[in-house]
Amino acid sequence: MGSALAEIGIGLIGGGYMGKAHAVAMASVGAVFDTALRPRLQVIAASNPSSAERYRKAYGFAKAADDWRSLVADTNVDAIVIASPQTTHLAIAEAAFAAGKHVFCEKPLGASLEDAEAMVAAAEAAGLTNMIGFNYVRTPATQFVRQLLADGAIGDVTWFRGEHTEDFLADPAIPANWRTTGRSNGTMGDLSPHMINCALALLGPIESLSAQIETVHPTRPGPDGPATVDNDDQAQMLVRFANGVSGHLYFSRIATGRKMGYAYEIHGTKGAIRFDQEDQNAVWLYRTEGPDATRGFTKILTGPAHPDYLPFCQGPGHGTGYQDQIIIEARDFLHAVATGTPVWPTFRDGLAVSRVVETAFASAASGGWLSVPQS
Amino acid sequence: MGSALAEIGIGLIGGGYMGKAHAVAMASVGAVFDTALRPRLQVIAASNPSSAERYRKAYGFAKAADDWRSLVADTNVDAIVIASPQTTHLAIAEAAFAAGKHVFCEKPLGASLEDAEAMVAAAEAAGLTNMIGFNYVRTPATQFVRQLLADGAIGDVTWFRGEHTEDFLADPAIPANWRTTGRSNGTMGDLSPHMINCALALLGPIESLSAQIETVHPTRPGPDGPATVDNDDQAQMLVRFANGVSGHLYFSRIATGRKMGYAYEIHGTKGAIRFDQEDQNAVWLYRTEGPDATRGFTKILTGPAHPDYLPFCQGPGHGTGYQDQIIIEARDFLHAVATGTPVWPTFRDGLAVSRVVETAFASAASGGWLSVPQS
Amino acid sequence: MGSALAEIGIGLIGGGYMGKAHAVAMASVGAVFDTALRPRLQVIAASNPSSAERYRKAYGFAKAADDWRSLVADTNVDAIVIASPQTTHLAIAEAAFAAGKHVFCEKPLGASLEDAEAMVAAAEAAGLTNMIGFNYVRTPATQFVRQLLADGAIGDVTWFRGEHTEDFLADPAIPANWRTTGRSNGTMGDLSPHMINCALALLGPIESLSAQIETVHPTRPGPDGPATVDNDDQAQMLVRFANGVSGHLYFSRIATGRKMGYAYEIHGTKGAIRFDQEDQNAVWLYRTEGPDATRGFTKILTGPAHPDYLPFCQGPGHGTGYQDQIIIEARDFLHAVATGTPVWPTFRDGLAVSRVVETAFASAASGGWLSVPQS
Amino acid sequence: MGSALAEIGIGLIGGGYMGKAHAVAMASVGAVFDTALRPRLQVIAASNPSSAERYRKAYGFAKAADDWRSLVADTNVDAIVIASPQTTHLAIAEAAFAAGKHVFCEKPLGASLEDAEAMVAAAEAAGLTNMIGFNYVRTPATQFVRQLLADGAIGDVTWFRGEHTEDFLADPAIPANWRTTGRSNGTMGDLSPHMINCALALLGPIESLSAQIETVHPTRPGPDGPATVDNDDQAQMLVRFANGVSGHLYFSRIATGRKMGYAYEIHGTKGAIRFDQEDQNAVWLYRTEGPDATRGFTKILTGPAHPDYLPFCQGPGHGTGYQDQIIIEARDFLHAVATGTPVWPTFRDGLAVSRVVETAFASAASGGWLSVPQS
Repeated sequence: MGSALAEIGIGLIGGGYMGKAHAVAMASVGAVFDTALRPRLQVIAASNPSSAERYRKAYGFAKAADDWRSLVADTNVDAIVIASPQTTHLAIAEAAFAAGKHVFCEKPLGASLEDAEAMVAAAEAAGLTNMIGFNYVRTPATQFVRQLLADGAIGDVTWFRGEHTEDFLADPAIPANWRTTGRSNGTMGDLSPHMINCALALLGPIESLSAQIETVHPTRPGPDGPATVDNDDQAQMLVRFANGVSGHLYFSRIATGRKMGYAYEIHGTKGAIRFDQEDQNAVWLYRTEGPDATRGFTKILTGPAHPDYLPFCQGPGHGTGYQDQIIIEARDFLHAVATGTPVWPTFRDGLAVSRVVETAFASAASGGWLSVPQS
Repeated sequence: MGSALAEIGIGLIGGGYMGKAHAVAMASVGAVFDTALRPRLQVIAASNPSSAERYRKAYGFAKAADDWRSLVADTNVDAIVIASPQTTHLAIAEAAFAAGKHVFCEKPLGASLEDAEAMVAAAEAAGLTNMIGFNYVRTPATQFVRQLLADGAIGDVTWFRGEHTEDFLADPAIPANWRTTGRSNGTMGDLSPHMINCALALLGPIESLSAQIETVHPTRPGPDGPATVDNDDQAQMLVRFANGVSGHLYFSRIATGRKMGYAYEIHGTKGAIRFDQEDQNAVWLYRTEGPDATRGFTKILTGPAHPDYLPFCQGPGHGTGYQDQIIIEARDFLHAVATGTPVWPTFRDGLAVSRVVETAFASAASGGWLSVPQS
Repeated sequence: MGSALAEIGIGLIGGGYMGKAHAVAMASVGAVFDTALRPRLQVIAASNPSSAERYRKAYGFAKAADDWRSLVADTNVDAIVIASPQTTHLAIAEAAFAAGKHVFCEKPLGASLEDAEAMVAAAEAAGLTNMIGFNYVRTPATQFVRQLLADGAIGDVTWFRGEHTEDFLADPAIPANWRTTGRSNGTMGDLSPHMINCALALLGPIESLSAQIETVHPTRPGPDGPATVDNDDQAQMLVRFANGVSGHLYFSRIATGRKMGYAYEIHGTKGAIRFDQEDQNAVWLYRTEGPDATRGFTKILTGPAHPDYLPFCQGPGHGTGYQDQIIIEARDFLHAVATGTPVWPTFRDGLAVSRVVETAFASAASGGWLSVPQS
Repeated sequence: MGSALAEIGIGLIGGGYMGKAHAVAMASVGAVFDTALRPRLQVIAASNPSSAERYRKAYGFAKAADDWRSLVADTNVDAIVIASPQTTHLAIAEAAFAAGKHVFCEKPLGASLEDAEAMVAAAEAAGLTNMIGFNYVRTPATQFVRQLLADGAIGDVTWFRGEHTEDFLADPAIPANWRTTGRSNGTMGDLSPHMINCALALLGPIESLSAQIETVHPTRPGPDGPATVDNDDQAQMLVRFANGVSGHLYFSRIATGRKMGYAYEIHGTKGAIRFDQEDQNAVWLYRTEGPDATRGFTKILTGPAHPDYLPFCQGPGHGTGYQDQIIIEARDFLHAVATGTPVWPTFRDGLAVSRVVETAFASAASGGWLSVPQS
């Protein structure tokens, strides 16, 4: 390469769905954003040699590894992206920080609250860049909503309703599988963190909550007859944010018809906002301005006037997509490494999400309101 | 009149917004539905002689009365429509039944649970037609949704979310007024009954709930400085229906941007339904039929294929409106009187709504789940 | 009746779909709008005694007639509503004006341009109230759009696109019927006038046009094999308005999926408007105001801030429907009679529509642009 | 690199908006689609050394060139992407084919019909891969629509309406610039080709048309007072496809409120389709199946069941964006080079678009219908 740009060696652990998304992001983020640090796709690790080599070829990495430890130990690797199962997050992160590597970790932070706390401790002890992957808050639309709220565009917020609903297990005839066992694979454990993080990003800390968590289909077909489902299909909670605003959160993996129902609505004294990830290039904004006759929700198409849109397309209405969110994340991670400044959301921000999840389980068990521990 | 049709003398108490709607409905229901009983606009009562006479002329009644008691006593009045304030409902209904008149009463049934119980007792002791005015469930759209659920079009229901949200008090600078004082005038007391009735109509009884009720703007400008608001601006509850389905209800009078946010969504194992009164001529239906590539929510425009649409317009997409709901109510009330059969929702159905409201207040005070008394 | 209000005896010719709509409107317009003149449902005429009597009972008229001539001659009839087939319009109108009666005539004015011209001549010679029934322009939404344009809310108009599309003959297996024969029953003859009138109302006269008119399904099943369809299924035209603006009009009775596709969009130098009758309670307005980041189409729900909404419902979002448009027409007709002032659209306004239709047929035959005769 | 994959050296001419999009696409297409040929970013050419070097660094090319001729001559360049102004397309393409390079050229094919014809001749004489860049037809949504039509999902097509509307020159106060001079920079020349190509892709050849082309704002502010605009602001045409279907096409750069109004609707005897690029992840499909009561337009969110979606995201509703269309184009181009098979749309397909444009200008001048030359 004729470039004098500083490179950064990337190690990617996990080559599945999220792994691929990060590989593509690292391959293109330099061109999209003209970043100071340019990723060099150094090592990809997977659970066995053949899949590791397959990923290496497909995604263009220099080396393949069938053991994440060798990836962590590789001296050409400067930063690590963890896109492997939740249960592996803690061990990898601890080893990575011990080896002096910066770490980007897919959500949720760990498979349990204890794991998450240990990961924060390791990250903060090391003083290295640590970031958790909540990609949906990085759409131009939701970034714009954060600006609107910060600017007081809808006055004082009085209500927040958020949901993350999909329907991949809506049909009770779908057999039991890895998703239907283990608390961390249930709706609260696996699906809720994205929207909880969004709620925290937009409204601030949740002070207390009252939750209901349920397994609507307690058995599913198994290889030897009905198999027990031991985690939750849907969950909801009344919440009170620290700023006094009340709200509602709802999560479901059996919400028939919903494909990416990451959606929220916010009421304020001077306006309101609605967003739905299924139409991620639009923000609906209502403001109490002008005569009644011309008031209504305005459908704003994202465009160059909104955050992080212009690098992807020149005109409004052209639209960004899922992969672009991951590229924006990569840009932010690289910037944090290059400048040594923290990047939101850090592991500690991810821990705050885990604490809401944990409190929800406790509340559902007790049937009443509980305070959410803050840190 | 050359008609040999049986007439029914109507007495209407209250000439304001709802009173007018019922006057128009009684004037046109015969032509729209070719009803067996034809309303004769006999007496209208209002709180003073001049407004009573004004209403009489405007709406075409034969007589005006400034005292509802004289209306009830009028021998030419066969049936009474109560469209006066909640606090008057009980006394009027008791007098009307005692005088052998059929009664249609605007929602909510009474100003308190006790009033509601007394009204049911009076109605059932008299054995006369008694009906409560929850007009929104009578749109062709929501009637069609009831059919869809009854037919199992979306399989087994797994979730219900309902709201009734408006924004008439969203601006905290709106001065204190009659709406901001008295529990029965608050959001739970006055706004919630329509959607609670809808939830009961669509899903059946609510078994238990956990509610949060709040006054977001505790003071508003008054004639002598800040005046205390003593009722609620918004409320929400987690609910469990008797059929085991869980759900969420939300009510607000400060939901900026919402004008008639009477909306619900229902998930089932084989489909889903969405409806919003702000677009009352459309039902959104998702069904798990056909290949994935052609699945999605179908926007069904109401038309002659749906209940009670054809009498208003010949073709789909022409659209019915608010006033038409009241005409459908009048048709059902007249039919009940003519045939001597009960008509849903009776006073007892209205009482069930009041019990949910009452339980919500108790739950919000205690902070936990409570059972809803059934009758 | 105890009222001292002036009454007006109404004679209605035709008891079918539109006849019923006008009967209902005349029964309720007084209560809805508190009109100065109160309609008295005097005579209804239909083509045979039994249907006339059936309509009389159903709609509440005093008398039935099986001959429109006796209705016209009835001295208790002051004003006549023509809701019978197009081919009868001319004879009825001429007789009515000769008898000194005011006339409301359903669209289109007559079955041919010559009929329309003769009706205008008769109306203007008589000096009596004459009005043509283009109900769709009377929704609160479209009335509001007229105001917006008049107020310059979107700057100078640069484009108009209008359509009236339905799908009642979309299936080529639908047998030939009265609609598939006779030029006046085709798409241009029967369906186009509503939207042409709307275009004229919103943009002013059409100066010239270039049209294409086609019979997509030239035969349909008949009693004895394929039957020839001799009128048009769909039509379109490029138009130039007298104000210099260009546009496009499209009409179809085979537009699968369209139920009441009376829709238009208007571009201006400072904004744009979109409307679709299938969602008749919303106007979409874009304005080039404020920063780019908050621009978009605003979905305005009709409400009390818009023309002729409040008499039907107190709050925005409650919604008006098809029948309400007919009531608004009745109000305007009665007002014109009461005050002796002309009411838009007069027969002459209806003639302007007929001239556009006629010019379109000539243009489609010649294949080029033609000027539209003005009057 | 440890990969044994075949590489292909890419030369990119033009580093602006479209150049960047192609650079990003070439950087990531290998990872997204696991292509047989892997692009090597070899040379980027721009009009001067400093911008060329800037682009090289930003996009990660090995070399920079300030003369496209040296890029064409570079022996490490196997394929060339032309993303420079229209007026340069012919000369570059001829030189590239002469040098044995495969060529991808941005739309429109050339600055004139003659240029386009010469480019086709050069491409076909060389027998090398030639492809024109109409990216919008490559969304999963529009690819799916092509499948639906091919499968007869909506029966026989009876109508097509297409538009490409934007508003970048809607404000008449925008000064004259390069876009407002030169026929090839006007609305027909620059904006219409995308949708004309879409119409041809979906319905087949256009046989004849009748067009209207106009400059709505004939002058705009210039450096020395009003400057003449010598190309068109908007254009429309009635069209007849070779298969007998009629339709309408409309193009505008002054369509206030429209950002990426690349939209079409198609009627068929058994269904209808609607699409709008501003919501590129949804297809609206109506089918005449099932009872009337459940018919309506279904909003289908793109997902893994649709063409070329899964490589970008695992679940439906996650959404693809503008950049992804360019990556799909790159995949198709690389595949054509690797296999030696033609790829739609070839230069000849681009020529068909240019002929429609040319015929439209002639028709607008003559005022009548003209046949479109086919090849």
